[in-house]
Amino acid sequence: MKLIHFTDAKPIAITEDTAENITGRLVISKADKAKYISMRVFELAKNGLTPWYFLDWDHEIFVHSGRGEILYNNTWVPLAEGYVIHIPENEEHQIRNTGNQPLVIISLVPPEAPEL
Amino acid sequence: MKLIHFTDAKPIAITEDTAENITGRLVISKADKAKYISMRVFELAKNGLTPWYFLDWDHEIFVHSGRGEILYNNTWVPLAEGYVIHIPENEEHQIRNTGNQPLVIISLVPPEAPEL
Repeated sequence: MKLIHFTDAKPIAITEDTAENITGRLVISKADKAKYISMRVFELAKNGLTPWYFLDWDHEIFVHSGRGEILYNNTWVPLAEGYVIHIPENEEHQIRNTGNQPLVIISLVPPEAPEL
Repeated sequence: MKLIHFTDAKPIAITEDTAENITGRLVISKADKAKYISMRVFELAKNGLTPWYFLDWDHEIFVHSGRGEILYNNTWVPLAEGYVIHIPENEEHQIRNTGNQPLVIISLVPPEAPEL
């Protein structure tokens, strides 16, 4: 068993494309012999923004804390703690922090996807 | 895209084996065409206890809120908000709520596993 607090994993600044004020932590990965799922925790600081992107794999997000919005089909849709998102493969999306606190999201991808 | 709050999914009482005061919600599943990951949200009320069990699949947990403990190798190990757990296949484990608030955990399994 691996048991850590997510803040024990090293934060890596995400700088690709439009990303702003965002770090990612790879908390469970292939290196842990996770066969099915890689778990990343992204922390968007105030005004933080993810890249505008899509993945070749459908993936899942759980909003752990904070407030934000997800851009989907040209519309910004509100997000808050406890929201769950399933994004089919090849669908573009982007997430931004609209609150004063960090927006912390759990992002889950299969091991075939880039881990971070 | 599917976007819901986890409390929008129907809570199902978990009654198997030693389970006490626990409900589960299937928030992303094969029915959503999720290919790789089924996401469940379990809520342990005060004194809640999961079944003592193992899965044939390695799986992952994120502690969203509350306080509790996980039994592993005959020892109860503390859990709190923000903890991440990777449990290899066939390793027995059990989780209990030791706080006064609900213990809410996100549990992730591959689609081959029973969804709830």
